Amino acid sequence: MVVILVKEVRVIGIKLEKFISENDDLPLLLFEAAVKQGTPMMDNDIIAITHTAVAKAEGLKIPLSQVNPTHKEKAIALLLRREYDPRVIALAVREAREIVRIDRGHLITSTYFGHVTANTGVDLSNVDGGNSAIILPRDPDEIAEKYRMRFKELGVTVAVIIMDSSGRPLRRGEVNIAIGVAGMSSIKDLRGKRDLYGRILKVKKIAVADEIAASAELVTGSCSEGIPAAIIRGVSFDPIDTPTGSLLVRDPQEDLFL
Amino acid sequence: MVVILVKEVRVIGIKLEKFISENDDLPLLLFEAAVKQGTPMMDNDIIAITHTAVAKAEGLKIPLSQVNPTHKEKAIALLLRREYDPRVIALAVREAREIVRIDRGHLITSTYFGHVTANTGVDLSNVDGGNSAIILPRDPDEIAEKYRMRFKELGVTVAVIIMDSSGRPLRRGEVNIAIGVAGMSSIKDLRGKRDLYGRILKVKKIAVADEIAASAELVTGSCSEGIPAAIIRGVSFDPIDTPTGSLLVRDPQEDLFL
Repeated sequence: MVVILVKEVRVIGIKLEKFISENDDLPLLLFEAAVKQGTPMMDNDIIAITHTAVAKAEGLKIPLSQVNPTHKEKAIALLLRREYDPRVIALAVREAREIVRIDRGHLITSTYFGHVTANTGVDLSNVDGGNSAIILPRDPDEIAEKYRMRFKELGVTVAVIIMDSSGRPLRRGEVNIAIGVAGMSSIKDLRGKRDLYGRILKVKKIAVADEIAASAELVTGSCSEGIPAAIIRGVSFDPIDTPTGSLLVRDPQEDLFL
Repeated sequence: MVVILVKEVRVIGIKLEKFISENDDLPLLLFEAAVKQGTPMMDNDIIAITHTAVAKAEGLKIPLSQVNPTHKEKAIALLLRREYDPRVIALAVREAREIVRIDRGHLITSTYFGHVTANTGVDLSNVDGGNSAIILPRDPDEIAEKYRMRFKELGVTVAVIIMDSSGRPLRRGEVNIAIGVAGMSSIKDLRGKRDLYGRILKVKKIAVADEIAASAELVTGSCSEGIPAAIIRGVSFDPIDTPTGSLLVRDPQEDLFL
């Protein structure tokens, strides 16, 4: 009898039965929900969590009634020539490290951690029906590391990815990307490894954390699923003690495409 | 007793025991290998295939000994100031619709199907140890559709994605993307759908085929694994009869980031 080892990765959605609120212990909620649904977390799992869930637990939810746009922010909202709420634009401007472009109805900015995206990631979806917006964390790696340590306290050694959906240059549609990564290298460096025919690979760095975030979106979805996180099981990674999400951000100065 | 339905996506590598050669019936090889390893393909699976495997079966493998670079091509190779084989650069120039940029040791071009990438995707890895290069198909959607019809003949109704690894602007590392897509929509349009709180989503198009390609890389890998394809199971999609890979390519004229 021939036994063939099948390489398989499982992407398991974690469904939460309750809405997430500020100061919730999100790792605990996810850990318990995974047990309850019959798929407990295991050592070497990767836990990918939507930024929306993280923002709610970390107090990054801003009631729009508390935002008073300045004249400049109102002017930018007008420039965009769309039905944007000036308060959302005000938040996007305030959370941006830099305004990259205002063009064709879109405000493109860079976040404090260097990610270039629309509206600085300020989002009204899946928050509370339009009354509040969520903003991106200033340092998503720090939160990923905090959650990783919390999972360790709960008894599992896992890697943690905080992910957000984002548009990208040159291609249509959004994909999930990793904005915070802890417990694993975000980039797999294959240079020096040999291919199927023994040839040494010269240039090959894989943004594996972005690929994991993308795979997680296949179960978390983006609208009414109530699945704020996924367990990714079967991806081997080297444990690492410093967060690595920021390594995925390329400095525009060294960009080959721009 | 409470039964909780767990949303799960499985990404199953298909291992081939033999090297792929020109005129091989790749869908048949993959179909049979999946049976042999105990994970037969099923209706509604998505079959993601590496472009390298496709290129070998489709005769897109070029022995470098047959490539004679022109003076202009040699000059470009010199401009790149790296240890590039001028014959690889010659192929990259010939397969390009347009040279986008020659900068800092990199040749950035657009392919005939509009994808902007390094060296027009001409690659020596996993081909035959460095003697031959593979080139990208001129119309990957057409091959995806051909394979989808072949799988149908073999008895399974699946979607097919042909994928390649590619660098991208603004972020470090390569990820797998979908260059050819058949049998499913490459982009999931959620506009008009409601979120968890009943709010209608305004802007939300997900490049689901790119996310699936990214997830497939987690099992196919990029070096010595001998896994040229993956079965993705558990992603619901609407069957569609026209290929959709080209829809993922954004015209630079309408790009918001560039």
